[in-house]
Amino acid sequence: MLCAPFYIAAMFEARLQSFDDPSDRVASAARVAALRAELKRRGLSGFIVPRADRHQNENVAAADERLAWLTGFTGSAGLAVVLTERVILFVDGRYTLQARNQIDPAIVSIEHLVDTPPPAWLESNLPTAAQLGYDPWLHTAEGADKLRKACAEAGGSLLAVDPNPIDAVWSDRPAPPLGPVVLHDVRFAGETAEAKLDRIRAEVARLRADALVISDPTAIAWTFNIRGADVAHTPVPLAFAIVPKEGRAALYIDGRKLSNDVRDRLKSLADVRAEADFTRDLAALGAAKRHVRMDQATGADAIAGIVNGAGGNVARGPDPVAAMKAVKNQAEIEGARAAHRRDGVALTRFLAWLEREAAHRAPTEIDAVAALENFRRESGELKDISFTTIAGAGSNGAIVHYRVTRASNRTIAKDSLFLLDSGGQYPDGTTDVTRTVSLGEPTAEMRDRFTRVLKGHIAIARAVFPEGTTGAQLDPLARQSLWQAGLDFDHGTGHGVGSYLSVHEGPARLSKLGTVALRRGMILSNEPGYYKTGAYGIRTESLVLVVEATGIAGAEKPLNTFETLTLAPIDRRLVEPAMLSVDETAWLDAYHARVRDTLSPLLDPQTKAWLEAATRPLNQR
Amino acid sequence: MLCAPFYIAAMFEARLQSFDDPSDRVASAARVAALRAELKRRGLSGFIVPRADRHQNENVAAADERLAWLTGFTGSAGLAVVLTERVILFVDGRYTLQARNQIDPAIVSIEHLVDTPPPAWLESNLPTAAQLGYDPWLHTAEGADKLRKACAEAGGSLLAVDPNPIDAVWSDRPAPPLGPVVLHDVRFAGETAEAKLDRIRAEVARLRADALVISDPTAIAWTFNIRGADVAHTPVPLAFAIVPKEGRAALYIDGRKLSNDVRDRLKSLADVRAEADFTRDLAALGAAKRHVRMDQATGADAIAGIVNGAGGNVARGPDPVAAMKAVKNQAEIEGARAAHRRDGVALTRFLAWLEREAAHRAPTEIDAVAALENFRRESGELKDISFTTIAGAGSNGAIVHYRVTRASNRTIAKDSLFLLDSGGQYPDGTTDVTRTVSLGEPTAEMRDRFTRVLKGHIAIARAVFPEGTTGAQLDPLARQSLWQAGLDFDHGTGHGVGSYLSVHEGPARLSKLGTVALRRGMILSNEPGYYKTGAYGIRTESLVLVVEATGIAGAEKPLNTFETLTLAPIDRRLVEPAMLSVDETAWLDAYHARVRDTLSPLLDPQTKAWLEAATRPLNQR
Repeated sequence: MLCAPFYIAAMFEARLQSFDDPSDRVASAARVAALRAELKRRGLSGFIVPRADRHQNENVAAADERLAWLTGFTGSAGLAVVLTERVILFVDGRYTLQARNQIDPAIVSIEHLVDTPPPAWLESNLPTAAQLGYDPWLHTAEGADKLRKACAEAGGSLLAVDPNPIDAVWSDRPAPPLGPVVLHDVRFAGETAEAKLDRIRAEVARLRADALVISDPTAIAWTFNIRGADVAHTPVPLAFAIVPKEGRAALYIDGRKLSNDVRDRLKSLADVRAEADFTRDLAALGAAKRHVRMDQATGADAIAGIVNGAGGNVARGPDPVAAMKAVKNQAEIEGARAAHRRDGVALTRFLAWLEREAAHRAPTEIDAVAALENFRRESGELKDISFTTIAGAGSNGAIVHYRVTRASNRTIAKDSLFLLDSGGQYPDGTTDVTRTVSLGEPTAEMRDRFTRVLKGHIAIARAVFPEGTTGAQLDPLARQSLWQAGLDFDHGTGHGVGSYLSVHEGPARLSKLGTVALRRGMILSNEPGYYKTGAYGIRTESLVLVVEATGIAGAEKPLNTFETLTLAPIDRRLVEPAMLSVDETAWLDAYHARVRDTLSPLLDPQTKAWLEAATRPLNQR
Repeated sequence: MLCAPFYIAAMFEARLQSFDDPSDRVASAARVAALRAELKRRGLSGFIVPRADRHQNENVAAADERLAWLTGFTGSAGLAVVLTERVILFVDGRYTLQARNQIDPAIVSIEHLVDTPPPAWLESNLPTAAQLGYDPWLHTAEGADKLRKACAEAGGSLLAVDPNPIDAVWSDRPAPPLGPVVLHDVRFAGETAEAKLDRIRAEVARLRADALVISDPTAIAWTFNIRGADVAHTPVPLAFAIVPKEGRAALYIDGRKLSNDVRDRLKSLADVRAEADFTRDLAALGAAKRHVRMDQATGADAIAGIVNGAGGNVARGPDPVAAMKAVKNQAEIEGARAAHRRDGVALTRFLAWLEREAAHRAPTEIDAVAALENFRRESGELKDISFTTIAGAGSNGAIVHYRVTRASNRTIAKDSLFLLDSGGQYPDGTTDVTRTVSLGEPTAEMRDRFTRVLKGHIAIARAVFPEGTTGAQLDPLARQSLWQAGLDFDHGTGHGVGSYLSVHEGPARLSKLGTVALRRGMILSNEPGYYKTGAYGIRTESLVLVVEATGIAGAEKPLNTFETLTLAPIDRRLVEPAMLSVDETAWLDAYHARVRDTLSPLLDPQTKAWLEAATRPLNQR
């Protein structure tokens, strides 16, 4: 079957990821002019355009890509301030270069989102008496408060504007998405929607609120055991919900997304209402002087405005559903294990394929993305990739949020490293895995850096910690070995991961800011890295499940540890064995043995042989 | 010199620490009755009595021991709520037992300060319409806000009462202290008071304030390069200061503490004013509509009340002087090193003495405290001990804040451990050191626990970390080895230490709550521990100085590490060598070699020989 690799490569194409580099730069001048005319008509001297939808989703629908439409900038985070004389686009460090390439510099100028946050910029630059508009559905209440204060300091004012003036001038604006809603089988969910709603109602009462507003579509999908298809890579429907302390919940959703069966099921759980009813019901809660709880991270300023404006009382705080959803039940845990076996097969087949390919040609980043997507699809269970695959060869690997386009595409050279960060959405679980591989002879420095990152990864994987320990307390364990060499990575060590939901999920995380206790059943990523700008990037990421640490004689308190869910070999050629302690080597060998034992029965003979070699003990040549 | 030990032991007595167990329990009923009569006269239904003075000092003068006078409870933290029918004393876990022994249960009942904080208790228990008084000088503004809110929730109200009603009925109340103020030589301070005041003025301007109120006597002592003698173990004068953005500072202090020379020096720096002028000047700042900055942790509610009441504007925030004071200059660092050599000689002489003593009798905890104080005093430089020595034998060692009294005094048995936590105040530096020793054959469990604590201590001592790293990020390194065995310690890993000032100093600390970055020049303690209730306590504490980590090839960012200042052997007999890594053993051996090389030339032959054996390499029998 010598020809097989060529045959497979030829049939690969990626369906879930595009390699285009869209930019509407040329249209920007006319669109800004049209918006300015609309603002003038409404008596405004400016308008704020965030890259956001009404739910503060990470991925937004095409209809919500207002920032990209206006400025050409397509990054996943940013905000523009449109004034009569200029447009300022705020982006963070990872997007500075991209923004510069995408915008029309005659129209738009760029500021650093972190160094000069929009409120600070407005405080110094907003013209006196300016009337700056904002869409209250696209900002959180807290975010709007900061902008309002800044405008006032500058002697201007911030005005809520609804409907959004961009929508009035965006003539070919895509329709809002109508992704069909499906029921999420209780076999995967592990708990009925009725039981979840009961738990939420109890939480609402405990919080001394009359009702909870849910803005986060992942929270809605979890609560009602449904999945949707309105945004890329996260299987959620755009919707809102209100859960009262007592009585029936209400779900606000476009009815065209619902089949009769789904509608019947949802009606057995809640009042299914039109989206237009949402503001009416919020106003009614306000008029009845109700105490309404709203998530501070995803709840729109408009919601608080409607409830408070009608005489109610909004309390902002952490979303109680987020905390429930983060703790996976036994069915979700079993699902995650199954999804990781399946995903491990796909990634292992890919890694074996990559090495075979590299033996006679240099595959490109796009080849890799397409091949990996196909291996995942061949599982027969792939619903989507869980995020845009990051496939960075050489210096592209050093760009933390790199996304390959036809213009940036590089071949995977033997003298450098290839970083591959990807994941799949399966009905039983969401995966997220990064492996960094060398197809040739890595330098001593690469091996040193890779091994330090691996020591951090192992320190997290092996950690034993008392119940109540936070992610902030574990984060430094992942950095110690890098610190000792004067190195570090500028991102968190890990984030929460949903169950066939968002690949980035709160409230717990492994980072300096992770002040939430890690609880048994939470799934997080363990992903220390090292990035050398212009040279290469390294990251080793597996998902881990918080489990009880048992069998420790004399333990005085409940203990937890992690079970590593991800199953894929870690490149032995990049490990410097002398830098690992006996315990670290034992961990790596045991992990590799588990990967081999679990995946081998599921693999074709060629990949199986490759995996055998890739997972042999570290000190066995 | 066979008799020497007896001779020395006989002449030991502690002058700086008392072993009495004072309790005014019998007087409590009459005193509470007198207070209630006074409250009634003033139209109050209750009064709050915190263990606090006007500066939120950790150690308070006898005149400020209102809580002890009223209830008999002498612990360093607590608060009583006196109502018409009952008195509730709130103490934390370390003082529950002591409080129970000291109070009259017919008069006072005890609540847990942490589980049931006073505001929560008041919210549920304050009688409706109750008028609860508090002394606004003894509460921070933030603390008073919480109490006020709780009283309002309960349908009562909180009223500021000045002067304190206890003082009206405390007939034999001691006079406020008049400890003489001395100048702190710039040879030790390393910076003139003029230069410090210039830096503070610049900070006041940067904070956009017109003036800074300094309530913390350690900040005043640092600013003006003075030391005082008004409270135990911390060489500070009770005083307030106001530093304006421009112009002369004002120091409010009882003139009787000042010699002519000291007064002349202080008058060259600031207006020296009577304490009574303080409130007048605060009111004047308020009347002039000034922005006044006040430390949120030590500033009394009364100060905010006077300034705001007169029309000014108080901003509460971290004390900028605390941040300056925490970073030691070269003279202070050299002083700290000298103080630690001197203190290391005293502690080493003590440890050698203890072992000789134990060979023919069982010394007691009190013997140990007295002997150690004398060895320190024999340095000729001891000004005070830096806190009440904790000398706990066997199960007494398991009481985290144990203070030996004649009643609790135990002999130091060979079959258990002896924990000794102590420190000295010297003109060039403050020390704080804990060593745990075994005078016989420790059990395997004791060695295991001791070695785990030591591994944590070494992890901190050897840590290399980027500039900007916080104490919270390092704290878990001290716990890892204990966590792995299901153990932990319920205290922080380290606190800041002053330069001939308070042994507990902000703003940085090694703890979950240590969110301040560690800066070069800061001195902190490194003190992991393990406490087994009813059995024994273990702690290994040295002070460490944050220094630049140099000589790391390829380092990409400024790096810091610690220099261990404390010089005293760590008991080798308690170390299980097999549990230490090669690097950990190398650290211990190198530390012991440094202790030996530094101290040996300063020791008598007998102690020198003992130290030689105590510091030999771990694997050398």
